[in-house]
Amino acid sequence: MTPIYLIQDRLVPKEEVRVSPDDRGYYFGDGIYEVFRVYGGKLFEAEAHFKRLERTAAAVRIDLPAASSELQKQLEQLIAANALIEGTVYLQITRGTASRAHAIPADAEPVLMAYTTELKRPVRTMQQGIAVVTMEDIRWLRCDLKTLNLLPNTLAKQHALDQGADDVVLHRSGLVTECSASNVMIVKEGAIITHPAGNLILHGITRAVALRLARELGIPVAETPFTLEDLRQADEAFVTGTTIEVTPVISVDGTPVASGSPGPVTRRLQQAFEQAITSCIPQ
Amino acid sequence: MTPIYLIQDRLVPKEEVRVSPDDRGYYFGDGIYEVFRVYGGKLFEAEAHFKRLERTAAAVRIDLPAASSELQKQLEQLIAANALIEGTVYLQITRGTASRAHAIPADAEPVLMAYTTELKRPVRTMQQGIAVVTMEDIRWLRCDLKTLNLLPNTLAKQHALDQGADDVVLHRSGLVTECSASNVMIVKEGAIITHPAGNLILHGITRAVALRLARELGIPVAETPFTLEDLRQADEAFVTGTTIEVTPVISVDGTPVASGSPGPVTRRLQQAFEQAITSCIPQ
Repeated sequence: MTPIYLIQDRLVPKEEVRVSPDDRGYYFGDGIYEVFRVYGGKLFEAEAHFKRLERTAAAVRIDLPAASSELQKQLEQLIAANALIEGTVYLQITRGTASRAHAIPADAEPVLMAYTTELKRPVRTMQQGIAVVTMEDIRWLRCDLKTLNLLPNTLAKQHALDQGADDVVLHRSGLVTECSASNVMIVKEGAIITHPAGNLILHGITRAVALRLARELGIPVAETPFTLEDLRQADEAFVTGTTIEVTPVISVDGTPVASGSPGPVTRRLQQAFEQAITSCIPQ
Repeated sequence: MTPIYLIQDRLVPKEEVRVSPDDRGYYFGDGIYEVFRVYGGKLFEAEAHFKRLERTAAAVRIDLPAASSELQKQLEQLIAANALIEGTVYLQITRGTASRAHAIPADAEPVLMAYTTELKRPVRTMQQGIAVVTMEDIRWLRCDLKTLNLLPNTLAKQHALDQGADDVVLHRSGLVTECSASNVMIVKEGAIITHPAGNLILHGITRAVALRLARELGIPVAETPFTLEDLRQADEAFVTGTTIEVTPVISVDGTPVASGSPGPVTRRLQQAFEQAITSCIPQ
């Protein structure tokens, strides 16, 4: 079956998608995006994603082509058109087409593109955990904005793979921020510690869900920066993200985290997350 | 006349250009670029531009689709096909098409796109000078790499325009780096001072030409960081860039630089730059 894309407010077969060479997304990375998780054919945490999209759009001054409620309906039609049950919806909105000049063009019409991807839950990785390597965070100081300027993230991810690891843990002068495309948390003496949601990290939707679930479970949560040393000496560590959900970190720079096995707090969170997913899926 | 684009190694009319929605340039800004100046139908400082392109490509691990000498021939054919006499050539190379995943795809073929734009020399601005406003530099720490991740630069430029100025002067904690798309220099007691060509600024080709000309003219040059206060108290200030050449800065945050008129060192550099251009144009 040919994939169906959402372009502006129209569903079109992928081969009919036309990207303009004048699209500012193509030559400036001038656009924003969201990756939505789909479980049971339904958008997971849709409201939180759209809220973040609105926030990013306002910060970079891109006018969303429609209200979030309308965009959500269009994404639901996209999911139906692709008969997607489990996977993701990628949505990006660029500032539009214009002759290349840095100034924001007054009359550009934003270009929306969305498509779906089938993706199973990463069951094995969630069971076994991942290995990370640490790396200086050299990104800009608005990492809270979900924009298309992702070259540093791609280079960081590749750096991890080159080292035989699964991902990087980024840090600024020893203070841990996040991973290449997910947030990172540690457990110390029963409490979860993670970088606060300021300008230095992306405010992950799964991060917020995990912290909410932790609080519901009575697990203490501290949103405060921690150091590389804290990470290395943590009782547990895990990452959160839209596609990886809650995934244990079992080694840092080749050294095991604690016993080198996923820990009990991480497991409890995973179970709670599983329930959160299940309760959202129509029976 | 319909514009002719260079796509890979082929000249094609613009309307036949097809950008793939799977181009990593489109969703990650995963690409590099150069803007060449064309005077008298000839590429100006071509060798320096290609050297920088090679350096950026190596740093972000994009394989150039051909040797620089071959690329230069293709750009010359592009210039001829568009009958361009005075203007610019924009060249970008993205990592290629692949399903969206952060890791660098092993088998993606880089996508080259180049086109020409007619552009007169900015005679009036070079005569009258520009107004700048200052702004914190929040970009990533590899500003020396000429990549497509330019959203911060576009927002900075727009910030200047919103303030009724022409451009921003960026600074990190009070140390001046550069402008949104050009380098900035000050003159103090007859000497030119500009930020060193490290990782915090783009190593402008015109910057290098200007410094070379200054040295030939016997003007002392110090490549050392200077402060916002140094800028405000400078005898002269100017910016250098491929399209703006050597352009005086006559005010900073609304306050005139010295007398508020272009200064003598700036004028001497402009004259020397003019001669450098003239000597390159075929008679």
